[in-house]
Amino acid sequence: EKAIDWRRGKLSLKSGVQCRALDVETKPSFSVGNKFELEDVIEGQQFDRDTLGAIFEVALEMEKIEKNSAGSQVLKGYLMATLFYEPSTRTRLSFESAMKRLGGEVLTTENAREFSSAAKGETLEDTIRTVEGYADIIVMRHFESGAARRAAATANIPIINAGDGPGQHPTQALLDVYTIQREIGKLDGIKVGLVGDLAYGRTVRSLAYLLAKYKDVKIYFVSPEVVRMKDDIKDYLTAMGVEWEESADLMEVASKCDVVYQTRIQRERFGERIDLYEEARGKYIVDRNVLDVMRKHAVVMHPLPRLDEITIDVDVDPRAAYFRQAKNGLYIRMALLKLLLLGW
Amino acid sequence: EKAIDWRRGKLSLKSGVQCRALDVETKPSFSVGNKFELEDVIEGQQFDRDTLGAIFEVALEMEKIEKNSAGSQVLKGYLMATLFYEPSTRTRLSFESAMKRLGGEVLTTENAREFSSAAKGETLEDTIRTVEGYADIIVMRHFESGAARRAAATANIPIINAGDGPGQHPTQALLDVYTIQREIGKLDGIKVGLVGDLAYGRTVRSLAYLLAKYKDVKIYFVSPEVVRMKDDIKDYLTAMGVEWEESADLMEVASKCDVVYQTRIQRERFGERIDLYEEARGKYIVDRNVLDVMRKHAVVMHPLPRLDEITIDVDVDPRAAYFRQAKNGLYIRMALLKLLLLGW
Amino acid sequence: EKAIDWRRGKLSLKSGVQCRALDVETKPSFSVGNKFELEDVIEGQQFDRDTLGAIFEVALEMEKIEKNSAGSQVLKGYLMATLFYEPSTRTRLSFESAMKRLGGEVLTTENAREFSSAAKGETLEDTIRTVEGYADIIVMRHFESGAARRAAATANIPIINAGDGPGQHPTQALLDVYTIQREIGKLDGIKVGLVGDLAYGRTVRSLAYLLAKYKDVKIYFVSPEVVRMKDDIKDYLTAMGVEWEESADLMEVASKCDVVYQTRIQRERFGERIDLYEEARGKYIVDRNVLDVMRKHAVVMHPLPRLDEITIDVDVDPRAAYFRQAKNGLYIRMALLKLLLLGW
Repeated sequence: EKAIDWRRGKLSLKSGVQCRALDVETKPSFSVGNKFELEDVIEGQQFDRDTLGAIFEVALEMEKIEKNSAGSQVLKGYLMATLFYEPSTRTRLSFESAMKRLGGEVLTTENAREFSSAAKGETLEDTIRTVEGYADIIVMRHFESGAARRAAATANIPIINAGDGPGQHPTQALLDVYTIQREIGKLDGIKVGLVGDLAYGRTVRSLAYLLAKYKDVKIYFVSPEVVRMKDDIKDYLTAMGVEWEESADLMEVASKCDVVYQTRIQRERFGERIDLYEEARGKYIVDRNVLDVMRKHAVVMHPLPRLDEITIDVDVDPRAAYFRQAKNGLYIRMALLKLLLLGW
Repeated sequence: EKAIDWRRGKLSLKSGVQCRALDVETKPSFSVGNKFELEDVIEGQQFDRDTLGAIFEVALEMEKIEKNSAGSQVLKGYLMATLFYEPSTRTRLSFESAMKRLGGEVLTTENAREFSSAAKGETLEDTIRTVEGYADIIVMRHFESGAARRAAATANIPIINAGDGPGQHPTQALLDVYTIQREIGKLDGIKVGLVGDLAYGRTVRSLAYLLAKYKDVKIYFVSPEVVRMKDDIKDYLTAMGVEWEESADLMEVASKCDVVYQTRIQRERFGERIDLYEEARGKYIVDRNVLDVMRKHAVVMHPLPRLDEITIDVDVDPRAAYFRQAKNGLYIRMALLKLLLLGW
Repeated sequence: EKAIDWRRGKLSLKSGVQCRALDVETKPSFSVGNKFELEDVIEGQQFDRDTLGAIFEVALEMEKIEKNSAGSQVLKGYLMATLFYEPSTRTRLSFESAMKRLGGEVLTTENAREFSSAAKGETLEDTIRTVEGYADIIVMRHFESGAARRAAATANIPIINAGDGPGQHPTQALLDVYTIQREIGKLDGIKVGLVGDLAYGRTVRSLAYLLAKYKDVKIYFVSPEVVRMKDDIKDYLTAMGVEWEESADLMEVASKCDVVYQTRIQRERFGERIDLYEEARGKYIVDRNVLDVMRKHAVVMHPLPRLDEITIDVDVDPRAAYFRQAKNGLYIRMALLKLLLLGW
């Protein structure tokens, strides 16, 4: 009965009707009064299927705001602080653009290490208590796993985790799932090939985790031996009834999948074994040959930045979805800012 | 006849009536036509008791703007440049938040050293002449004492000193006095204990100086031997008729004071004598035992960041005022921006 | 028939009448429908005499917006990204001020090197494709000649080159020519002395190039032997019929010129030959003696920052135009942002 066609370019959301339908569906699970239940965005695990669906509905509305360039002013008068303990310009610009696209204002710091603990010994908690006096929401990136959770426990304003070390990067996970929904038109019944660094890649681990919330998903792991997907995720998928298999044949996997999700092999994981890095890095490349066997409706995704694991000549193919995926990060972040500050 | 109750939570300012009364009181001393007499904020010495009172009245108005979250737009169209020759994220964010809370815009630079003298040999004066072409007000932090005064001598737009080396940090001094007014409800007749690094701490020296403008103030100095308050301030207090004494007994002082103002012992002052630093640092700690002897209406203040000179368990006590104090920095800076750009 | 008097302080533009006249004059060459023909600002060579005139007309309008402090909101809802691969605070602040003076918003990054290639090996093209998803226009500074052109070839939004290494810095060139127009009142028939580092100075080379578009211009080159103007520019001027000569006599040149354009000798060009640097640096100084022989209507210009190649006592003379020149950068950048985002 859903009238939303998620495929890009075929947008047919009739907002009046849809929104009412959606209200009925989602009110029981997401709203208490007029307040979205989520108070912070800390980790992928906090999202269930319904929450994801609700966020994606709002993200879709955000795309329309952007297109009309009318520039909604719903967050006018709100102030977001980007508290980055390590630089991540891409993520920071995406959040700041999101805030400004909704009429909000931004306080920026990319050298938050100097600001606090590292420099003078102040605790993260004290820093948060100070900054929450200046802003209405804090977007935080930190080098320590669990830092976002600590900040959220302290703060009286919403915290969004923009990556905490080897830990979580939940907005990346959300934009990945949203992109699949948007490009393939569905999340149930899809086949996804995860390629490249599956051992250390935060994004593929989170994506596998979130995909387990959907029905009849099949996941293929394609990676060099040294960076295979770890057992914790495999066990989780099995427990959730998700079918998965490992494969060394990228061409065969690509021919069957709806999504080929390529990732960068990270040199820093190999220490002095540059030989192993070079071997791993060259093993699975998405190029025109891979595209040739892919299905017509399938897409290639990548969290960016890419080196040469996707060749440049793939870019012109309409199935190259990675720059649209980056743009979707903007819509997801707009949606989260709106939901956390204004509620559902 | 004053109807303002300064104690937080008991705000009973009747703005209509009060403002008229206030106009009458203050016009003679502060306004020439419609223009506040202050053109720059350079040092604590420029403020007399009446000026402080006027600034605090405006700061109190600012609290109400913030609370209503209506977000006044009085500084819409105004541009503030934060020209920081050394990073101070806390101070910078506070100023930028203040400007944005009033609808103004901000140009930020935290690497102003690269911008000018240090990098290519440009004088501070030339830099100021250039930047004043881009902005309506400059908030400057510099590593050299007296730099703000030089900038103000050159600029045709207002300069706010956000700290110049070992020199002045006048907005910190203002927010400290404002916090006492706000928390204790008065400035005349109060007893203040200044604790910790009294030799090098810019804030306690400025605070002692400004408190001398009020009647019947009593100041207690509690510090390790190596960082005792210097004679210049003691002599000044004596000359101004302010009663003061040194004490080694924090408990006794705390039991008598309205304000216990704790500061951080700065390691960098001790060079290689880490042993002296450790001894000084552990000597006067504000903990639950100190709270237990403090009066019910008294407060603990601290300029932040703190290490362990105030224990964490103090934070939950309503008399722990240091995070409210940090927030007051926002209101003081809003008030100054409004006064300097729009006048009284 | 032109009614605009370009001399500062004698502004007599009657906007109603003029604009109509101007529309008629310029429509054929600049506008296709309602869209200015320029899509990017990459290099000085892209501007012909008519384009320069059109940009200058808009810049003049921008001065009036700023003066009235009404703060036009024509770029409200537009987002500019300043993507700086090397810091240049002066240029960045000028662009950001320009954007905000027109009601637009800014995303800032001064550490774009970390963001992309240098850090993880991403290509400039990939970075541009990502950032164009967040913003409506990109102002880019890069360390490599030609980088701006590559960015423009990739981007679907306008690119402004804010300097690419030893290559181009077109907005500086535009503001220089605009300043001459504004200060002298004309560009045809003027005499310009270019002084100082003519071999490596990007600004003087660009200025000489652009001046060749005007009639009866005479250029004097006054420089130490080691940093003489290179043959490519001399040959170009000759080919364009521009009269030029080299001179070792600054006083004589100054007595004849409308504009004395002084530049800084750049130490880094001399390697270990500090002796040559010191000799070159002290050779041609603009001081009160030079002012004394200059014509009453003439001006001294300098791209800033200056060291001691113009003595401080020159600043008070009304013919010292260098700080007005810096301010003109604001108006030129406002004009370009408006033209690129809204069209003619």
